[in-house]
Amino acid sequence: MNKPTILISNDDGIDSRGIISLVTELKKVSNVFVVAPSRQQSAVGHAITMSSPIRMQKYERDGIFFGYAVDGTPADCVKLAVRSLLKIKPDLIVSGINHGSNTAISVIYSGTVSAATEGTILGIPSIAFSLTTYDEADFSYAAEFAKNLSLLVIKNGLPKGTLLNVNIPPIPKNEIKGVLITRQGKSIWNDEFETRRDPSNREYFWLKGELLELDIEDDIDQKAIIENKISITPLQFDLTDYKAIEQLKNWEIDSLL
Amino acid sequence: MNKPTILISNDDGIDSRGIISLVTELKKVSNVFVVAPSRQQSAVGHAITMSSPIRMQKYERDGIFFGYAVDGTPADCVKLAVRSLLKIKPDLIVSGINHGSNTAISVIYSGTVSAATEGTILGIPSIAFSLTTYDEADFSYAAEFAKNLSLLVIKNGLPKGTLLNVNIPPIPKNEIKGVLITRQGKSIWNDEFETRRDPSNREYFWLKGELLELDIEDDIDQKAIIENKISITPLQFDLTDYKAIEQLKNWEIDSLL
Repeated sequence: MNKPTILISNDDGIDSRGIISLVTELKKVSNVFVVAPSRQQSAVGHAITMSSPIRMQKYERDGIFFGYAVDGTPADCVKLAVRSLLKIKPDLIVSGINHGSNTAISVIYSGTVSAATEGTILGIPSIAFSLTTYDEADFSYAAEFAKNLSLLVIKNGLPKGTLLNVNIPPIPKNEIKGVLITRQGKSIWNDEFETRRDPSNREYFWLKGELLELDIEDDIDQKAIIENKISITPLQFDLTDYKAIEQLKNWEIDSLL
Repeated sequence: MNKPTILISNDDGIDSRGIISLVTELKKVSNVFVVAPSRQQSAVGHAITMSSPIRMQKYERDGIFFGYAVDGTPADCVKLAVRSLLKIKPDLIVSGINHGSNTAISVIYSGTVSAATEGTILGIPSIAFSLTTYDEADFSYAAEFAKNLSLLVIKNGLPKGTLLNVNIPPIPKNEIKGVLITRQGKSIWNDEFETRRDPSNREYFWLKGELLELDIEDDIDQKAIIENKISITPLQFDLTDYKAIEQLKNWEIDSLL
């Protein structure tokens, strides 16, 4: 069998350690094609660039890979790669490895997940990988697991409209306690703004805060990480609240017309 | 009863016609507080600003409203207003009126919807309104309907974690054929990139395309609009693909460790 083709992107930027670890592993088993943001794009959500043109530059990481650095968001990178740059449809899209977790409510702000969402919209099996620490960390085991799961997804396929959001604890292989198939937790951020004044005495605001542990059920993404397990959450992008539909039908909204 | 307090934001920017029409109507029945992006923010998805500070300016629209123009995304505006600027918790958050539809896959790229999503995350009933045309249009009926639905939502409340995504056809009141409670359609964009060269002969790319009508079932958002009806879709932000969970449990993923 020919080697599969894997498109790789991320949100930390094309020169981040996470993507380099990922490319290094995936190159062993596939033809990799790297199209990633030229700069850090964390918390961009599912943004795409429509009101300005997109620029891109060839990028070379000596001895590791050639790729394209795009002045845009993760979703821009995947759209541009699939719709314009790649001559063939990739067998898989892999986003990451993000430096920091993408669990609970953070999933909807995540650029890493967004690249995989865009891939799924375009009809290509897609996976987002995150290493769950903001500290200096070793990506090597996460990259090895990413390689193994990528090959399994290429073999098994994914249901239409489903992507995988994978969070990996920052610990050595022999301390990993297993893999859990999870749901997105319901914890939110206790965010607040710190108000400062610049030298001209004008106010500015820094967002700060941390993810609260409000949801502690056994089957959630965050819980897996706390237990030193790898979390795999299948995601989809139909946001309809089906439970609420019947409730709203009782509202006699026609009377507002 | 005291007048309710309504926080208003959008993604077209604080000086857009849609938000001015909305404020004009909602002022008649509530205390409005306007915190909106200083510039157009379409297709920003659920982006938030974390890697730079946020600035804001007082904004006055003579005879209509005072407000705050934020150099940030719609989600930034709502977070900053609720967490820092407002002394009381608003009774409702209203986003819009967007100039252009937010149906089907566009929902996940939408800054308008994102402001309402952020409001819901913060525990406040929230609604996104869009007028389904990109042409010059009259927002007055859409604003009147927005006022009426806002009062109904304040009276009835919304289920925890549910927001409303409302799309209104750009036609006179007497041509509106009703209100449908819908689900998010599955149509996607046939997007492509137009490659151009700048005067220095460097390539750049413009995203272009249109929403395909791939999904034509009766209960979807786009279908309501085609039938000259107002579409109300309840949305939520747990992206878990619950159907896929059982399937993945059969994969023997533990063998990858």
